[in-house]
Amino acid sequence: MVSKANYIRWLSVRDIRFPTSLEKDGSDAMHTDPDYSCAYVVVFTDGDAKGFGLTFTLGRGNELVVEAVKSLSHMVIGKDLRTLYKNFGSFWRELTSESQLRWVGPEKGILHLAVAAIINALWDLWARLENKPLWKLLVDMDPEQLASTIDYRYISDVLTPEDVVDILKKMEKGKEEREENILKNGYPCYTTQAGWLGYSDKKVKELCKHFLKEGMNSFKIKVGQNLEQDKHRCQLMREAIGPDRKLMVDANQRWSVPEAIAWMKELAPYKIEWIEEPTSPDDVLGHATIAKALKPLGIKVATGEMCMNRVMFKQFLQAEGLHYLQIDSCRMGGVNEILSVYFMAKKFGVPVCPHAGGVGLCEMVQHLQMFDFVSVSGTKENRVIEWVDHLHQHFQSPPIVRNGRYLAPQHIGYSTEMYEESLTSFEFPYGQEWQKLFQNGTYKDPRATATQLHKPH
Amino acid sequence: MVSKANYIRWLSVRDIRFPTSLEKDGSDAMHTDPDYSCAYVVVFTDGDAKGFGLTFTLGRGNELVVEAVKSLSHMVIGKDLRTLYKNFGSFWRELTSESQLRWVGPEKGILHLAVAAIINALWDLWARLENKPLWKLLVDMDPEQLASTIDYRYISDVLTPEDVVDILKKMEKGKEEREENILKNGYPCYTTQAGWLGYSDKKVKELCKHFLKEGMNSFKIKVGQNLEQDKHRCQLMREAIGPDRKLMVDANQRWSVPEAIAWMKELAPYKIEWIEEPTSPDDVLGHATIAKALKPLGIKVATGEMCMNRVMFKQFLQAEGLHYLQIDSCRMGGVNEILSVYFMAKKFGVPVCPHAGGVGLCEMVQHLQMFDFVSVSGTKENRVIEWVDHLHQHFQSPPIVRNGRYLAPQHIGYSTEMYEESLTSFEFPYGQEWQKLFQNGTYKDPRATATQLHKPH
Repeated sequence: MVSKANYIRWLSVRDIRFPTSLEKDGSDAMHTDPDYSCAYVVVFTDGDAKGFGLTFTLGRGNELVVEAVKSLSHMVIGKDLRTLYKNFGSFWRELTSESQLRWVGPEKGILHLAVAAIINALWDLWARLENKPLWKLLVDMDPEQLASTIDYRYISDVLTPEDVVDILKKMEKGKEEREENILKNGYPCYTTQAGWLGYSDKKVKELCKHFLKEGMNSFKIKVGQNLEQDKHRCQLMREAIGPDRKLMVDANQRWSVPEAIAWMKELAPYKIEWIEEPTSPDDVLGHATIAKALKPLGIKVATGEMCMNRVMFKQFLQAEGLHYLQIDSCRMGGVNEILSVYFMAKKFGVPVCPHAGGVGLCEMVQHLQMFDFVSVSGTKENRVIEWVDHLHQHFQSPPIVRNGRYLAPQHIGYSTEMYEESLTSFEFPYGQEWQKLFQNGTYKDPRATATQLHKPH
Repeated sequence: MVSKANYIRWLSVRDIRFPTSLEKDGSDAMHTDPDYSCAYVVVFTDGDAKGFGLTFTLGRGNELVVEAVKSLSHMVIGKDLRTLYKNFGSFWRELTSESQLRWVGPEKGILHLAVAAIINALWDLWARLENKPLWKLLVDMDPEQLASTIDYRYISDVLTPEDVVDILKKMEKGKEEREENILKNGYPCYTTQAGWLGYSDKKVKELCKHFLKEGMNSFKIKVGQNLEQDKHRCQLMREAIGPDRKLMVDANQRWSVPEAIAWMKELAPYKIEWIEEPTSPDDVLGHATIAKALKPLGIKVATGEMCMNRVMFKQFLQAEGLHYLQIDSCRMGGVNEILSVYFMAKKFGVPVCPHAGGVGLCEMVQHLQMFDFVSVSGTKENRVIEWVDHLHQHFQSPPIVRNGRYLAPQHIGYSTEMYEESLTSFEFPYGQEWQKLFQNGTYKDPRATATQLHKPH
């Protein structure tokens, strides 16, 4: 290992934004006008090798994640790579426990999103140095070394390094067959793309038809703005996909606990597999109350894309606040922390169904979920990866979905490298695409708003 | 109201840092070298009136809160003040739910700390416009209007506007007497200043003697780095303060759940009133486990200074994860959200003992706690405000402590205005004091580190 690089020479970060709100793509009950964006990190070594990592955001606020990456970068630049990867769990703790910076976290929000971008770039680099796709790097890794990448602080009451080694060793049986399986069959996915809130009935119907033809068996729609409309849309979807395929709904944190229960009782007739994010992502006990109330109706609770760290997931599992665990590849502190959650989910027997879409999320989670199948859970039962066919043209190695399945990525790394042309065009606010949008008045240049806002409103 | 101002003309924010790590003041098991700092906000109106607000941090990372204030400022500048204060709860929700920005929160970490600085400045302004100290503004406010300042989203299963009005109306009995009481007797406090981790035995003994003479009856020390040293320091403190005064200990999140229980069993012989922050501030269920295990030993659990929002406090109360609730005036989204926590604590019968110290925290929490006594809980039993006599010289109206009690503030506002001279000297990195520290080599200029860090380490 580390033949092509010895230490980290530099780290760059750029504010990349796509004007997706113009098309209403990705609209939901709480996020009505997202401009899908990312803080894009490149880790440069003393050799040719580079690592690419990112954190997804919705536009405004991306500048803050970019600044946070800069504030953390002094802990990364100059690091010896051999030492870093040998003690990745210790390095992760260092990065998340800086004695002054942790006050403005700790392990949550902007600071943790920035950690994710850096850590993801370091995993991409590691996979490149080993000349493997990330999922294969994880699959081939010695159990003790894999266990050492995790920081067990605050979760040792539920998960220890011994547990991780034990799980990996037990799962060695059948591992080769599962790897062949994944290479041959890929991993099933579901689509959210037929049911964004901004879409018309006609568009929804057409999209269902399209995705059925493409081999999808699970569909998710956004709910939570208007109960009558939700009923109408659920019925529309149920009719379009037939009685047996899975229909999931997503409220994006719209409700209080009692509202969630009442609303979902109204939607039960449409045979809903899960309600996603019924209330505040921070309300573990609220989710547990909702889960208990909806169980008799056969509706399960899914959450996780805004679950900020492993300590929260630990509690969601302990309190039975979720039945489907939806890890996000950028919300938590990158692969190291996500691994700890996969292992905790395994211990609790809860299926992981990753959140994806946005910018680069599909690219990343496919690796994680394939590793889970081969080395951790050993099963695809009740498990699907979200799939949104959007913005992949900006990535050098986009995920490939065929017949409702992600194909196992064959290229080296974590699939996170973007085209320089895309970066140059969509860098905010100086990229050409943004300059055009400011000039034709579609967007306001944020550098101009200060004076415009002097007027009272 | 609003005689001297109609709308918000501008909002400024500055990065203010004090080099406190040089003296080891404020050192604890997790934060070994804090440079007490704040993001300092001034809200300018179209008239003479201004509002001053701040968020406390430990140094590095303060620049991120400053940037987050700038990212939020477009939602504040230009606002009509009459509308804002009439619908303060709605404005608060607007500020915390911006459709793109909320992704990098929501309601937590850097973004929420920035909300706190802005919201605190708006409350200071409101009190100034009414020509009252903040606590008196709250005490005199019509119950319905006070209830309307709170956003009940995600807590309505525990607290409604009707509950708040009901509590306030019930507490009208005896209110005048309690106001007289507070003006005459002030509010009891405790000190953390005798027991920072960096202090020698000799210094600890001298400080205990000093604070006993000053009338203190409760003392807190930092623990968690070394069990034998902790025993030694607890014994030292117990001997210095006698068998009957209260001794509290603070672990600053050092332990896992089982470690916390084991460690505290060892310290039980020293008669500990509370263990503060035994583990991750996010681990509600972990705190509940610790609380249950330590109950037979008479040790109670206190936490809150890093509790990020009302949704977490709701769960801490529901799960019995704390016996003392330690609100922080800057961690949550300012006075509006803090009020909701005081009312929830009232409903659960849990005493609030605010976290203070840092920069400006004593200044602010005295107002909140006095309001609680007069209008919400109606009692001082089992309640104390933390007191650290540090950095108050930078504030125009510092808190006054006599005989172990905070005196009721008489000056208008929220006590948050700092001297311009202090701001100019300690603005980071361009203030004269910082320039001196860079020039004499005590600190590295952060603007220089980029190139220095090119060397591998």
